[in-house]
Amino acid sequence: MMTAHPIPSINEQRLLADFTELSEIGATIEGGVSRPALSNEDLRARAWFAERVEEAGLLLRDDDAGNLSGFLSCGDPHARTLIIGSHLDSVPNGGRYDGAIGVLAALEILRTLRENNVKLPVHLEAMNFTDEEGCWQSLFGSRGLTGTLKTMPTSDKAGDSGPFRAALFRAGIRPADVHRAARDPKTVAGYLELHIEQGAHLDREGLDLGIVSGIVGRSAYQITFYGEASHSGTTEVDRKRDALLGASAFIVTAHRLAREKYPQAVFNCGALEILPGATNIVPAQAQLRMECRHPEGNALATMEGELLRLAQDQAIRHGLSVSVRRVMHVPVATMPEAIVEIAEAACRELDISHRRIVSYAGHDGQVMSQFTPVGMIFVPSVGGISHNPKEFTRWEHVIQGTNVLLRTAIGLAHTHAQVQR
Amino acid sequence: MMTAHPIPSINEQRLLADFTELSEIGATIEGGVSRPALSNEDLRARAWFAERVEEAGLLLRDDDAGNLSGFLSCGDPHARTLIIGSHLDSVPNGGRYDGAIGVLAALEILRTLRENNVKLPVHLEAMNFTDEEGCWQSLFGSRGLTGTLKTMPTSDKAGDSGPFRAALFRAGIRPADVHRAARDPKTVAGYLELHIEQGAHLDREGLDLGIVSGIVGRSAYQITFYGEASHSGTTEVDRKRDALLGASAFIVTAHRLAREKYPQAVFNCGALEILPGATNIVPAQAQLRMECRHPEGNALATMEGELLRLAQDQAIRHGLSVSVRRVMHVPVATMPEAIVEIAEAACRELDISHRRIVSYAGHDGQVMSQFTPVGMIFVPSVGGISHNPKEFTRWEHVIQGTNVLLRTAIGLAHTHAQVQR
Repeated sequence: MMTAHPIPSINEQRLLADFTELSEIGATIEGGVSRPALSNEDLRARAWFAERVEEAGLLLRDDDAGNLSGFLSCGDPHARTLIIGSHLDSVPNGGRYDGAIGVLAALEILRTLRENNVKLPVHLEAMNFTDEEGCWQSLFGSRGLTGTLKTMPTSDKAGDSGPFRAALFRAGIRPADVHRAARDPKTVAGYLELHIEQGAHLDREGLDLGIVSGIVGRSAYQITFYGEASHSGTTEVDRKRDALLGASAFIVTAHRLAREKYPQAVFNCGALEILPGATNIVPAQAQLRMECRHPEGNALATMEGELLRLAQDQAIRHGLSVSVRRVMHVPVATMPEAIVEIAEAACRELDISHRRIVSYAGHDGQVMSQFTPVGMIFVPSVGGISHNPKEFTRWEHVIQGTNVLLRTAIGLAHTHAQVQR
Repeated sequence: MMTAHPIPSINEQRLLADFTELSEIGATIEGGVSRPALSNEDLRARAWFAERVEEAGLLLRDDDAGNLSGFLSCGDPHARTLIIGSHLDSVPNGGRYDGAIGVLAALEILRTLRENNVKLPVHLEAMNFTDEEGCWQSLFGSRGLTGTLKTMPTSDKAGDSGPFRAALFRAGIRPADVHRAARDPKTVAGYLELHIEQGAHLDREGLDLGIVSGIVGRSAYQITFYGEASHSGTTEVDRKRDALLGASAFIVTAHRLAREKYPQAVFNCGALEILPGATNIVPAQAQLRMECRHPEGNALATMEGELLRLAQDQAIRHGLSVSVRRVMHVPVATMPEAIVEIAEAACRELDISHRRIVSYAGHDGQVMSQFTPVGMIFVPSVGGISHNPKEFTRWEHVIQGTNVLLRTAIGLAHTHAQVQR
């Protein structure tokens, strides 16, 4: 059933007004926002979003994982739901665009379709997912909705779930009920998301949009090197078991390995904690957080294995022992070719320059891709800067991205029965 | 004026009883002690020491830096004072011997000389110095006594002096009055100290005692590498400015430099703090604590210079900037040959095996050596373990060391006018 109307465009002024208002919630002096998940600022952003949903005449929904949405029924009780969304939470001292534009675009698409009386064979839902950034637990909301939260909510920092549970209760989320947020994939038609690229590719190539063809797989490890605390001055050099020296040698050689053997990969050592951490004591323990991303699942697994062997080698070479714990894994996501082609066609219709792109950042769309057909549109990040107050995207790109997403939603709604995962 | 009596020996049982009692103050389940300076345990150890001083018929003294001593006058108001001492404070979860045996030996020497009515041309003072280990400020007491505390007491950890000042007040020490602890070097005849070696040389060579000929100079630096926080997944590898990677490369190459070019030196990187310290953010800042020790002042200075240039090189190579702050410096100490020879003669008289030794650990004796002639005797540390509950010294060595120190005190008292610094 095709709509009789021509496809409308979104209301640019209304979208910009929304963005301006939302950017004031948790605004920082440096020009960004700080809205860590479940913080006062995040709760205020949710309340603001709920008002916009009701103002637009949409049905306000929330689920047991704290996901908050505006729902537009197509009138058919047997219809599936096409979810469009992103997240309102930010990293601490982050930017205004990451996540926010995806939620606002979803809301604007529903408003536009409703006002223009566009009838689709699916329900539409504009979604704000809880804690995408992982202030408490990465991708909490989308994992909750897809039923893939493996453990009861615990803080992923120290294994102490107390503060996280308190934050959940404060936001009206009962930890014991989170599993109820899981939906039946048969009720979902697909998932679409507009997001900033966060990298510099589109900006440098002067392109308007990126059509995401896949999202890198991602694994994070906690690697702990154990040596022996001893007096730095009186312990002979051959008897020292220096955990920091071993960890440093690992960091240097691991970066070299990743760079030389895995040019498509991304590697990061983001945190290192030393015990006891005194100037005149040989470090007894060095606990490292390491992360690998790769667009190909097999290559990611091989790379992880090589890095873990390297950690063992460096430990032995420095007289240390080592323990390894995988703290996170998100598999590679591949976007269905049919959705990519719908988005590419929309770009051509609207004369928008574009190319296919692999996402090196994780997204709710990555979790959703294990559950339902997913499409993602990237807008350029000027200078590739993100997770930073200087994050910036030209407003014309947000408008173009939202219009392409609108057309992709219509196209997906009409073909959703054909899209096979 | 030589004493008419033969030189007495110390009371072994009394010294052991003291050691056993003192070891119970702050005792840990692992068999060591925890008496960080100005803690409840340290204050209890001081009170216990004060009781022993009064019980022995000595004059109890304390000064404005919290140094606590027992004083034995020789009766001559114009005489100088020979100080013998060490420290009762320990590192957290440290051993029973470090510092403690030096204070107990000093007390036992004064008791022995008094009981045996040995007349010397100097006053004697058995000294407990405040905070040798640097829980708050390294060598606080000896620096106070020698007038070399450069700044008002502040915590050397974070530049916040509040907690340190509170701890001082609680121990009855007024920060504003600490400068009054400074003595006139003309009133001091010398300083002697018995201490554990903390290294494994004497134990491995099967020797009873070490006669300290010098103490290494020691410098500590805070080196901060500054990069840029960015999204680990989306920032291209050539645009990353990773402070942890730069710091790790420095740590690895600095250890190599120290080992290859400065075999007499000791080098340690004991603490490293990373900001922001998140798995998926490229580290923006890495703050390192580095320490160098060398028995020769010129070589120490050259080594420091080379290491600081290496930090600059590694910063440039990794696109970072770097700042450097020297946070501590104790110059090389050389013990007067005359005192070393007195101690060696005492060893020969008592048939005790010994050799000269350079101390790689800092001591109150190092601060005192800038102020007055100093002698130090080392007893072996089994396995070289110290700053650890497993720290252990055979009791016969403590007895031998105390008897040698007693003879060295008598010899120094009689020759103190001849010893030139």
